[in-house]
Amino acid sequence: MPDPKPATIRPTDDDARATARGLLSAARFGALGVIDPETGGPAVSRVAVARDADGQPMTLISDLSHHSQALRADPACSLLVGEPGDRGDPLVHPRLTLLCRAIFVARADAAHDRLRALYLAQQPKARLYIDFGDFRLVRLAIADARLNGGFGQAYRLTADDLGG
Amino acid sequence: MPDPKPATIRPTDDDARATARGLLSAARFGALGVIDPETGGPAVSRVAVARDADGQPMTLISDLSHHSQALRADPACSLLVGEPGDRGDPLVHPRLTLLCRAIFVARADAAHDRLRALYLAQQPKARLYIDFGDFRLVRLAIADARLNGGFGQAYRLTADDLGG
Repeated sequence: MPDPKPATIRPTDDDARATARGLLSAARFGALGVIDPETGGPAVSRVAVARDADGQPMTLISDLSHHSQALRADPACSLLVGEPGDRGDPLVHPRLTLLCRAIFVARADAAHDRLRALYLAQQPKARLYIDFGDFRLVRLAIADARLNGGFGQAYRLTADDLGG
Repeated sequence: MPDPKPATIRPTDDDARATARGLLSAARFGALGVIDPETGGPAVSRVAVARDADGQPMTLISDLSHHSQALRADPACSLLVGEPGDRGDPLVHPRLTLLCRAIFVARADAAHDRLRALYLAQQPKARLYIDFGDFRLVRLAIADARLNGGFGQAYRLTADDLGG
């Protein structure tokens, strides 16, 4: 029996790119998957999401969190964005899986203040804690992306497909 | 400097247990983290969620999906449940990270038909595809759980804390 997988991935077209960019640009939060240093297995937690000037995702996390400690040990991570509505089958709603590498942004980094301003423009309530000593901006550099536009509508995208 | 981590985890109490059980019992979908066999890193995707008679989570996935292939290779996984509303800081909403082991339920398994009925009672639209040859019920056996009840409200829970 032939491997059925290739047939399930559709060729990437402009509609798929537009859907994926739309999901990323609308995301206020996402589900971040990391390798848990305690177990070596995956752990998923919620993070807030904003975008840099190129439309690439970033987040703001506390050093006290599990995911922060995990990303310090292994920067490979994954971000799921695209929320279903309250009704119907949750699987008909499009969503985007990003495979990423986390890059912590030091406060001394030349880009820090610009990213901080962009972050606060998108997550204004974070003003309450963004300057706490344990909070860090983290860029999520996209290595690969998978769009699921609904049943049978799977696409594979590159960082360029998602580029601003 | 002392390790600040222990102080950030609160003692598990009945309120924490009730919040965690409530998040799990209300979940129609969740974010599933797996180890991606292509990269060895984490990958997060959306899955539908239902509960068995003991309140433990289960899902229904296609053999054609990335997460199904990943779970066949490595059953360690993580499920995030608890959706924020549309307003305010998404991080103030409680959410629950489950560390799980995936157990595929064969159609020949004695428990299959009972689980299928429970699944459909909670996800009635899945009737359209639950009997497709590539779809499998998968139990997500909880090994460990982390409740984040909002800023500074972190708890660690066991499977027993989440028991029906």
